[in-house]
Amino acid sequence: MFLHRKELIRPVNVGEPDARFGQYLLEQFGGATGELTAALQYWVQSFHVEDETIRDMLQDIAIEEFSHLEMVGKLIAQHTAKVDQEDVYAAPLFAMKGVGPHFIDSCGSAWTATYINEGGNVVRDLRANIAAEAGARQTYEALIKRTTDQGTIEALTHLLTREITHARMFMKTLDAMGKLTDPFFGNIEPDETVNVVYNLSQGQDARGPWNEKPFEYVANPKAEGEFPPAPVNPDDEKAKIVGKRAKAA
Amino acid sequence: MFLHRKELIRPVNVGEPDARFGQYLLEQFGGATGELTAALQYWVQSFHVEDETIRDMLQDIAIEEFSHLEMVGKLIAQHTAKVDQEDVYAAPLFAMKGVGPHFIDSCGSAWTATYINEGGNVVRDLRANIAAEAGARQTYEALIKRTTDQGTIEALTHLLTREITHARMFMKTLDAMGKLTDPFFGNIEPDETVNVVYNLSQGQDARGPWNEKPFEYVANPKAEGEFPPAPVNPDDEKAKIVGKRAKAA
Amino acid sequence: MFLHRKELIRPVNVGEPDARFGQYLLEQFGGATGELTAALQYWVQSFHVEDETIRDMLQDIAIEEFSHLEMVGKLIAQHTAKVDQEDVYAAPLFAMKGVGPHFIDSCGSAWTATYINEGGNVVRDLRANIAAEAGARQTYEALIKRTTDQGTIEALTHLLTREITHARMFMKTLDAMGKLTDPFFGNIEPDETVNVVYNLSQGQDARGPWNEKPFEYVANPKAEGEFPPAPVNPDDEKAKIVGKRAKAA
Amino acid sequence: MFLHRKELIRPVNVGEPDARFGQYLLEQFGGATGELTAALQYWVQSFHVEDETIRDMLQDIAIEEFSHLEMVGKLIAQHTAKVDQEDVYAAPLFAMKGVGPHFIDSCGSAWTATYINEGGNVVRDLRANIAAEAGARQTYEALIKRTTDQGTIEALTHLLTREITHARMFMKTLDAMGKLTDPFFGNIEPDETVNVVYNLSQGQDARGPWNEKPFEYVANPKAEGEFPPAPVNPDDEKAKIVGKRAKAA
Amino acid sequence: MFLHRKELIRPVNVGEPDARFGQYLLEQFGGATGELTAALQYWVQSFHVEDETIRDMLQDIAIEEFSHLEMVGKLIAQHTAKVDQEDVYAAPLFAMKGVGPHFIDSCGSAWTATYINEGGNVVRDLRANIAAEAGARQTYEALIKRTTDQGTIEALTHLLTREITHARMFMKTLDAMGKLTDPFFGNIEPDETVNVVYNLSQGQDARGPWNEKPFEYVANPKAEGEFPPAPVNPDDEKAKIVGKRAKAA
Amino acid sequence: MFLHRKELIRPVNVGEPDARFGQYLLEQFGGATGELTAALQYWVQSFHVEDETIRDMLQDIAIEEFSHLEMVGKLIAQHTAKVDQEDVYAAPLFAMKGVGPHFIDSCGSAWTATYINEGGNVVRDLRANIAAEAGARQTYEALIKRTTDQGTIEALTHLLTREITHARMFMKTLDAMGKLTDPFFGNIEPDETVNVVYNLSQGQDARGPWNEKPFEYVANPKAEGEFPPAPVNPDDEKAKIVGKRAKAA
Repeated sequence: MFLHRKELIRPVNVGEPDARFGQYLLEQFGGATGELTAALQYWVQSFHVEDETIRDMLQDIAIEEFSHLEMVGKLIAQHTAKVDQEDVYAAPLFAMKGVGPHFIDSCGSAWTATYINEGGNVVRDLRANIAAEAGARQTYEALIKRTTDQGTIEALTHLLTREITHARMFMKTLDAMGKLTDPFFGNIEPDETVNVVYNLSQGQDARGPWNEKPFEYVANPKAEGEFPPAPVNPDDEKAKIVGKRAKAA
Repeated sequence: MFLHRKELIRPVNVGEPDARFGQYLLEQFGGATGELTAALQYWVQSFHVEDETIRDMLQDIAIEEFSHLEMVGKLIAQHTAKVDQEDVYAAPLFAMKGVGPHFIDSCGSAWTATYINEGGNVVRDLRANIAAEAGARQTYEALIKRTTDQGTIEALTHLLTREITHARMFMKTLDAMGKLTDPFFGNIEPDETVNVVYNLSQGQDARGPWNEKPFEYVANPKAEGEFPPAPVNPDDEKAKIVGKRAKAA
Repeated sequence: MFLHRKELIRPVNVGEPDARFGQYLLEQFGGATGELTAALQYWVQSFHVEDETIRDMLQDIAIEEFSHLEMVGKLIAQHTAKVDQEDVYAAPLFAMKGVGPHFIDSCGSAWTATYINEGGNVVRDLRANIAAEAGARQTYEALIKRTTDQGTIEALTHLLTREITHARMFMKTLDAMGKLTDPFFGNIEPDETVNVVYNLSQGQDARGPWNEKPFEYVANPKAEGEFPPAPVNPDDEKAKIVGKRAKAA
Repeated sequence: MFLHRKELIRPVNVGEPDARFGQYLLEQFGGATGELTAALQYWVQSFHVEDETIRDMLQDIAIEEFSHLEMVGKLIAQHTAKVDQEDVYAAPLFAMKGVGPHFIDSCGSAWTATYINEGGNVVRDLRANIAAEAGARQTYEALIKRTTDQGTIEALTHLLTREITHARMFMKTLDAMGKLTDPFFGNIEPDETVNVVYNLSQGQDARGPWNEKPFEYVANPKAEGEFPPAPVNPDDEKAKIVGKRAKAA
Repeated sequence: MFLHRKELIRPVNVGEPDARFGQYLLEQFGGATGELTAALQYWVQSFHVEDETIRDMLQDIAIEEFSHLEMVGKLIAQHTAKVDQEDVYAAPLFAMKGVGPHFIDSCGSAWTATYINEGGNVVRDLRANIAAEAGARQTYEALIKRTTDQGTIEALTHLLTREITHARMFMKTLDAMGKLTDPFFGNIEPDETVNVVYNLSQGQDARGPWNEKPFEYVANPKAEGEFPPAPVNPDDEKAKIVGKRAKAA
Repeated sequence: MFLHRKELIRPVNVGEPDARFGQYLLEQFGGATGELTAALQYWVQSFHVEDETIRDMLQDIAIEEFSHLEMVGKLIAQHTAKVDQEDVYAAPLFAMKGVGPHFIDSCGSAWTATYINEGGNVVRDLRANIAAEAGARQTYEALIKRTTDQGTIEALTHLLTREITHARMFMKTLDAMGKLTDPFFGNIEPDETVNVVYNLSQGQDARGPWNEKPFEYVANPKAEGEFPPAPVNPDDEKAKIVGKRAKAA
C-alpha cells in the first residue's frame, strides 16, 4: 500500500528558472535513465524475487526513487514557471504540451517500459540495477555541468549521490551471494568454449585483462558451422533463378 | 569495415522443427535481451570510448554477437521450415509475416533501440554490458528448458556459454579499472547522505549487507523539503476554486 | 514524499491459479487502461494544476491507483505461481519473460507514456480522467466475465468499484466549476459555426439530441475553401510533368 | 465508402510563412491531440457501437476531422513553403524529412495508435471523445497564442470552435443516455466502498465537492490486505539468502 | 474535403465468423502492410508533390485505400460478431479490447506512423508506394490461403487485385518520368564507384545480372579509409588505461 | 560469420566539426532511412529468400551497409568531438546522451524495426529494397546541401552513390525475373477490376499514364456494397437508443 506526504524527501529550490534547462531535466523524469525507470524496475522485480529480505531492499529503494521522481518533477515545474510568449522558441516543448513535467525525455520521446530490464532471476535483476544506477548517475553529472543555479546543483547532487548509494547496496547484495565478481549464475552448464576469446575485429588489436590468461586468445577465428539453406516458404512463388553460383572464392 | 563468411561461427542443426519454439526464439533475435541488442550496444559504445584497448574488446565482442544473431536467425529459419496450413494456429505470427526470423520479439513487438543502454562514460557502459549479458543468459536458460531438440539445445548452450564469457571479460575490465566493486565513478563529489539507507517500505522489514554497517539505517525517514506550488500556466484560465484547505492533518 | 506499507490496500486471494488469465490481467498492469496509466496521469497533472485543493484530490487518487497497481501485480504473481513446463504453451509470455507482472499489456506490448492524456488546463485534465476511469472500468468488467475464481472476482470488483468512485469525484469537481455539462473552457472565443452540425457521412442518416435544435443541421455541406498548391521543395528535382489536367469534373 | 473534393471545408490562407510555427502545427497533424487521433478514434468506434444513430454521429464527426486534418496539413505546407538553406536551423526537421506535413508531432515523435481510446462500450467511447476534444481544443489555444498571422489564427480558431461543437454533441448524447453526470455504466455491481474517499496523500489536505458528503471521507486509511509472497520461479536458481528479517517495525 | 457514403465500395459478406481469423485480419487494418499505412502514405505525399496531376493520382488512390480500410474493418467486425465466453481463448485479444477492428496488428502492436515511407522527392515517394503495394498484396495472399470462407475470399481477392492495379499505376507514372528502370534521380552527381560491386559476404559466391557487366566486380574488397579515434567526451573521467596495443595483426 | 577490420571501407575526414550537423547525421545512423535500416532489412531477407544467388547479393549489400553505418558513425563522432559547455544549446542531444553516434534519428526518436519492410516473397522484398535505397539517397542529398565541409561532402557523396548502385542491382534482379515493370507476382488471380481506375478525389482532376488506356477510368464511382451493422458486443450494456433514423438522404 502506497502513502504520500505533501513534502519533499529533500529540498528543491530553484533560483533562476531556465525553461531550456527544464527541458534537459525531462531526461531524468521521462527519459531512459530517469527516476521512473528506476522506480518501476526495482518495484516490479519485488513481485518475483523469492528472497523476502532482498524484496524488502528493492521496495525501500523503489519508494525512494518515486520520491526522487517527485523532486525532479518539482525542479522542472520551477524551471518552467515563467514560460511565456517571449521565450517560446527557447523551450517550445512546454509551449505546446504545457508547463511542468511530462513523461517524455529531453527530445520529446514518450517514456516506454522497454527501458526496464528485469525478469526471471535475482542475479540478473541486481546486475540490471547496477547498470540502471550507472546510467542515472551519468545523466545527473551531465545535467550538473550544464547549470549554474545553486539550488538546482544541490538537488541534482543529492540525486546523483543516492544513485551511488543504491549501486553500493546492490553490489553488497550480489557480493553476499558470491555473484559480484563471478560471471556464472543459473542452472545450465556452459560448454567448453567458456574461456575462449575470439579476435573478430582485426587491425589495431590490443591485449588486456579481458583477453589474457586465463582466457585462451584465438587470433584468427575460423567458422565451425555450415550455412543452412533458407526455409521453403509455402506462400512464395518459386522465384525464377536468375543467377548462378560462382566458383568457390 | 565489415566482412562476412557464408558459414556459421558454430554449427546449427535442428532435428525436429517446431514453429512454436521458433516463435519463442524470436526473443533472442528481435527481443530486448537478444543478440541484436548486445551487438549494437557494444558496437555503438566503441565509437565514444576513449581507451583504444577497451574499444578493441568492445568491437571483438560486438562482431561475435552479430555472428550469434546469425545463428539464432538460422535456428528460427529451421524451426519454421515446415510452416504450412496445418499448424498455422500454432504459430500464426509466421503465417502472417512469413517464415524465418524477423526483428520482433516472441510477442510480435518490434525491436527498438530503447533496449540499448550506453553513453558518455566507459564505466557506465561496462556495467550496462554486464547487465545485458545477464539478461541474455537468463532468456537462453528459459529457452533451453522448453525444448528437447538436441541440436537446438547444443546451439543455445553455446550461446549461453558465450554470454558468461563476455560477462567475465567485462568484469575483468572493470576490475582492472577498480570499478567492479566500487560504486563511485565520474567527477562529481557525492553529498553527506552517501552512506544512508532509508526504510521507506515498512512492515516486514529486513536487514542484510545492503543496510547494515557501514551503512547508516534510518528506520523512520522524515521529509526534509517543503512542497513547492505548481507553476502558473499562461495558457490556462484561472480555475474557479472549488475546494478549501482542510485543517492541518 | 512516497511511503509504502508491505500490506495491500485490499485483500488479494487467488484460489485457482490460471496463467492464461494472468496474461489477461497484464492489461490492467502494463496496458493502456491499466492502473499505471491512471496513477501516472493524475500524479503528473498535480505538478501543473494551480488550484491546490484539486491538486490534493489528484494526489489522493493517484496514490490509491499506485496501491491498486500493486493489487493487480499480486493477482498476476499468484496466477502465474504454478507456471512450469506443462502449461508453457498456455501462457508462453511468462515462460520467456519470467513469472509475475511486467509492464506490458496482454499482447506483450510495452507500456508507453503515450497512453497518458494531460497538460495545460485543469478542465482538459479532468475530462481526460473521466475517460481514463471509463476505460479502466470497461476492462475490469471484461476480466470479471472471463474468470470464475471467487477471490479474483472480489478483488477485480473492488478495483472496478473504485473507478466509479473516482469518476464521480472528477465529475463533482467539474460540476463545481460549471464544466461538466458545458463544453466551453479556455480563453478563445469560438467562431460563428459553433452550433452547426455537418452531415458528412451520408446514407442511412439519423437525427438525435446531437444534431437537433439548438444545433443547426446542414444536410449537404459544401466546401468553403480553395485548395492551396503544394510547397516548392528546394531539395526536389523538377518532376517531369507526366499528366494533364482534365476538364473540370 | 470515402469520397474527396479537392477543396477545403474551410479556407486556409497563410500570410507570412514561418517554418518554426509549421513545426508546432505538427502537434495537430501527427501529435497526440491532433486531428488524426480524433478522426480515427471516432471512426473506429463506429464499427462496434450498436446504436445505428450514434454510429451515424460518430461517422459524421470522423469525416469532419479528416477534413480538418487536411486543413492542418495545408497550413503546414504553406508555413514550410519557403524552407531553404537560410533558416534550416530554425526548423531542421523539415530540412531532413522534407517540406509539408508528416505524421509526427512537434518533437518529431511518430504518431501512434496508442493515442486512441476506444472499445467495448459506447459510454466509455463517448467519454473518451469528450476528453479527446478537450485535448485538441487546448493545443489549438496554445498554437493561436504563438502566432500573429491573421490567416493562421482564423483557421485555427475555426478548428478550435469545432472541437467545442463536437464536445457538446458528445455531451448531448451522453446526457440523453443519462450518463453525462452519472458515473455508473455497465453490468457489474460495485462493492460497498463506492462512496468512500481515502486521504492517501497527506499534509496540506483539502476538502471539496469530491470528498464531502455524500462521500465518506477516511482521513487515515489503513491497509486491509496481507502481502502475498512472490511466486516460485521454476527457472530461477534458489537465491542464497543473504539477509534476515528484522523485528516487526 | 472528405465525404462518406454509408455503403461499401465493394461487398463484404462473411459466411462463417471466425474470431481467430478476425485477429489475422488486423494485420491489414492496423498492421505495417495494412490499408491505413497505404491511405495515409499516399495522402500525405499529396501535400508536397509539386506536379498537380500526380497529386491527383495520389489522392484518388488514397481515398480508395480509406474505402478499403473500411472493408477490412467490416470483415473484422463480422468475424468477431460471435465472440463470447466459449471461444475467448481462441482470440483473447477481442475479449480484452472489445469486438470489431482496432488499430493494432495481428500480434496486438499498435499502428505507428513509422510504417510510412515518404518525403522530399516524388521519385522516392513513388518507389515507396510500389513497395507498399507489394507488402499489402503479400499479406492478402497469406490471408486468403488461411480461410475457406467464400465471402471473405472474394473480398480479400478484390483488395489484393487493387494493390496490383495501384502498383501498375505507380509504375506507369515512374515510367513516364523515365525513373522506373533508371536508378538515378535527384541533383547530386555520384562518384566514380557507381558501377562497382563488392563481394563482402564470401563463401558460396554467386554471379548474376546484379554483379555482371556492366558492373565491375571486386572479388576481394579492401578497406580504403583509416580508423578515426573516438572523440574526447568532456563529461567522461579519464579512463585508466588497462590494456596495451598488440603488435600489428 | 561476421568479421571486422579496424579500417573504414572509405575515408572519413571531417574538417570543421559542427555538432548541429552531427545531429542531422543521426538521421542516417538511427533514422528511418539510415544505414541500420538498410543493413538489417537486406540481411534478414537473406534468411528466407530461397534463391541462393539472390541471397548472396542480399548479403553482399547488407555487409556493405554495415560498413556504411560505421562511416556515418565516424562522421558523427568527429562532428561532436568538440561538444562542450559553449555550444551545448546548439546540440543539446549530445550533451544529455553523450558524444558520438546513438541509434536515434535527428529528432531523438529511437530506431525501431518497424522501419523494416520484408517478408514472405522475394519480389516484395526487392521492391521494398528499391524504396529503401530511394529514401536513403534522398536524405543524403538533404544532408549534402546543408554542409560546406569538404570531407563530409565527399563521404556523403560516396554513400549516396552506393545507394544508386544498390538500387540498380535490385532493379537488374527484378528485371531478370520479369518483375521490374510487371506489377503481378504471387499465386492469386486478380478479379475483373484489375484495370479499373476510380476518380475518388474529385475537383481539379487530371489524366495521365496512370489512368489512361489501357486503364478503364470511372469518373463517378458508385458504392457497390451494403453497409453491415456493428457486431453485438457481449460485454456491452444495451445502449439506450437516443436517436432516430432520418428519412433517406
